[in-house]
Amino acid sequence: MADTITPRDQDYAQWYQDVIRAAKLAETSPVRGSMVLPPNGYELWQNMQGALDAMFKATGHRNAYFPLFIPKSFLAKEAEHVEGFAKECAVVTHYRLKEEDGDLIVDPDAELEEPLIVRPTSETIIWDTYSRWIQSWRDLPLKLNQWANVVRWEMRTRLFLRTAEFLWQEGHTAHATEAEAIEETRQMLDVYATFAEEWMAMPVVKGVKTASERFPGAIDTYCIEALMQDGKALQAGTSHFLGQNFAKAFECTFQNADNEQEYVWATSWGVSTRLIGALIMTHSDDKGLVLPPKLATTQVAIVPITRKNADNQATLDAAYAMRDALEASGVRVTVDDREQYRPGWKFAQYEVEGVPVRLAIGPRDVENGTVEMTRRDTSEKESVQREGIAETVGGVLESMQAALFESARQRRTDHTHVVDSYDRLKEVVEAGGFALMHWDGSAETEAEIKAETKATIRCIPFPGQFEGVDTEEAGIDPVSGEPSERRVVYAKAY
Amino acid sequence: MADTITPRDQDYAQWYQDVIRAAKLAETSPVRGSMVLPPNGYELWQNMQGALDAMFKATGHRNAYFPLFIPKSFLAKEAEHVEGFAKECAVVTHYRLKEEDGDLIVDPDAELEEPLIVRPTSETIIWDTYSRWIQSWRDLPLKLNQWANVVRWEMRTRLFLRTAEFLWQEGHTAHATEAEAIEETRQMLDVYATFAEEWMAMPVVKGVKTASERFPGAIDTYCIEALMQDGKALQAGTSHFLGQNFAKAFECTFQNADNEQEYVWATSWGVSTRLIGALIMTHSDDKGLVLPPKLATTQVAIVPITRKNADNQATLDAAYAMRDALEASGVRVTVDDREQYRPGWKFAQYEVEGVPVRLAIGPRDVENGTVEMTRRDTSEKESVQREGIAETVGGVLESMQAALFESARQRRTDHTHVVDSYDRLKEVVEAGGFALMHWDGSAETEAEIKAETKATIRCIPFPGQFEGVDTEEAGIDPVSGEPSERRVVYAKAY
Repeated sequence: MADTITPRDQDYAQWYQDVIRAAKLAETSPVRGSMVLPPNGYELWQNMQGALDAMFKATGHRNAYFPLFIPKSFLAKEAEHVEGFAKECAVVTHYRLKEEDGDLIVDPDAELEEPLIVRPTSETIIWDTYSRWIQSWRDLPLKLNQWANVVRWEMRTRLFLRTAEFLWQEGHTAHATEAEAIEETRQMLDVYATFAEEWMAMPVVKGVKTASERFPGAIDTYCIEALMQDGKALQAGTSHFLGQNFAKAFECTFQNADNEQEYVWATSWGVSTRLIGALIMTHSDDKGLVLPPKLATTQVAIVPITRKNADNQATLDAAYAMRDALEASGVRVTVDDREQYRPGWKFAQYEVEGVPVRLAIGPRDVENGTVEMTRRDTSEKESVQREGIAETVGGVLESMQAALFESARQRRTDHTHVVDSYDRLKEVVEAGGFALMHWDGSAETEAEIKAETKATIRCIPFPGQFEGVDTEEAGIDPVSGEPSERRVVYAKAY
Repeated sequence: MADTITPRDQDYAQWYQDVIRAAKLAETSPVRGSMVLPPNGYELWQNMQGALDAMFKATGHRNAYFPLFIPKSFLAKEAEHVEGFAKECAVVTHYRLKEEDGDLIVDPDAELEEPLIVRPTSETIIWDTYSRWIQSWRDLPLKLNQWANVVRWEMRTRLFLRTAEFLWQEGHTAHATEAEAIEETRQMLDVYATFAEEWMAMPVVKGVKTASERFPGAIDTYCIEALMQDGKALQAGTSHFLGQNFAKAFECTFQNADNEQEYVWATSWGVSTRLIGALIMTHSDDKGLVLPPKLATTQVAIVPITRKNADNQATLDAAYAMRDALEASGVRVTVDDREQYRPGWKFAQYEVEGVPVRLAIGPRDVENGTVEMTRRDTSEKESVQREGIAETVGGVLESMQAALFESARQRRTDHTHVVDSYDRLKEVVEAGGFALMHWDGSAETEAEIKAETKATIRCIPFPGQFEGVDTEEAGIDPVSGEPSERRVVYAKAY
């Protein structure tokens, strides 16, 4: 039987761990901070990759691959960047082990001349390469994406949300003008928002980070922020306008149409396996994982109710016929005809693993032309006709995708509050939710609030994202008493 | 214009480098031994991934992901394995850099308790995990595949063929019986052979490695071997029967149906970006890359012959109409309507990049309902009707795929010789080719031949792969004079 899952209202953090374990999405490994991703977890990531990759290509990007290792000297070239990443990086110093007295030791004679950093992000190695690839305006824009593993030596790790090694994509683009680079930065933020909402069924707020939360080396960091079930925010994707910082650090110039040398303008943008953590905390429940149908590896599991020492052929045949009909209409479906597990065990397993629709078919169904359909999000169970099963199931998958989004959107609306006093801010972020409050724009106020409440400014939101609230209206910062140009989004965050 | 390519008969190794550079498949990086893969190279790898991944799934495998880092102690657990990989591995010893006197240095206070190895292959970390996942016969077989980067600290590197970091897949399966594991090992070899022949259009010999060429830790290493244009062999994929070696090293046992504890039986198998090197040296020519249509990212490039300061709309419209027709029939096609490049430059570029079919359309073609089609492998140029272009092009792509395979097969036949004397062996391997010669089965004879001729036993071939030659017939090893049970394949190799 499926493992026990702690109810959310009892211990949300434990619930999160339990769902991951029970749904076999990830586990800790003997390597501190590194996850093992069993098939359920890795394939979910692959499904996300597939959807994102198509969106990247549709916006004119191509994939490339750059080295895992970054020479130490590269990291040093951009001042803020090194400041941000040097403190938590894996350093390769030797290239050989040897046996000594029966022990395997690091060979002291095999020390590298220059230590290598396992990439925490690839701006430096990529801009070093771009400085050779880009000569003229004809080479621009250069719009590449990389699917890769990266390593940041995080001290306190949590599956998916913060791990030493994680999987991600990082886009790195080069442009002739500032305006074009900013347009790219915002376009990719829109791509991420569309992916979050249409595929993950997870509503997000789009905005800009304050200086203190910016990517090291960026001029501006745009982000999408989601609200988890427990009222904490989660940064789900970032898109950085890098200005000419990396072009200057790596001497990347181009000859413009007037034969003048100019520095190239840059962007970078990324999302990671962290999105799986966001997905879990947006939709899942006390019974386990709930997956939006568009991202589920298996959308429909068919369980034939067979009996030992009986003739089950008619039941199995009916199950296979349904599978064929569903497959033909593009549904990802499996028939679980394994004999070593009982039907009840299988049903429980698919529930905990978040398969959107389960179909159980027994001898009586075979006679009646019916099948028992259970929908994962609502747990609704109904007997439906097998005739036209592809249309029936297709409709359920679509309506489940929409319902998950709607329910997450409603929850966010319920937990988003216009706040006009420091006390109310404390209340809202303590209870969990987004607080839309005026900010005077100073780092001091931001830091003071963070120190006292642990809430941070998740973003300075783009206009028009909160129904009935004009975040662009000027006012007074209730904490400092200073004038404020707009409301920002405060919350505690993962 | 495209870079100059050294002719093959002048300097084959230089030709190889030139094709890679001109077709923008890969380049060296500032990190010793690590490649940069620009889009042309990486997307070719992705196309290979797509085909292989579908074949793995069709044979019951799922994808998973394991940590990049392997604790040093894990590597030590399997004696032959450590012997094989400890001498050439990247070792992470520290987890932080710090600034000191304006320099960025490895922080001596941030040394890891146990050094971590960047995976050269993942048997150890995976079997450590499997030992927790596998308890009972019900958990078997466990058939997983991982797409990943690995690092082997090679001293002499060559793009694609031998690099410090490379991309690959590694399958790792666990079975209840020896027979089932051997069957899996051979099945995956068949999958690789099918991929090589049907997708890469590259004929391969299937066989078993001798003990000296075995994977460190394997009982048997099966392989596919291809013959390059210059007569050197290239190992294109390996599938290992690992027996219970790793199960014993990592205490991975299962309870069988009779409630007894047994060690699990293992296989592993992999192919890598090395395949791109094989692809280049199988089909490409003095004009640049030649790609089999099934693996080409762009199968057809349409170049509208436009003129400056003229009305090109009709030409462009005809080009887009062809694109739409080709796309609708599933062809991967691009219209190159960039204005900053001349048509002649584009044509030369697509030739060097190995796009299978180029279509040039000018004003006269628009009037005549024609288009000029050029096929990459034969350089045949002909004027064809635009009506029915999808069928015409589809037929050419199919026939090109078949012709490339046939031509490579014919070349291999021409360079495969039955050899019955040491002198003839020397002649054959020196001129370049496969020599089918008797072998007495001793490591001494094998080593002696290798020392003198640099030729190695590429494999002990499966029966019936060489027309008119019964490699299973007994005879005499002409080098040692000892009896031999069969002929093996000798060649110099990459």
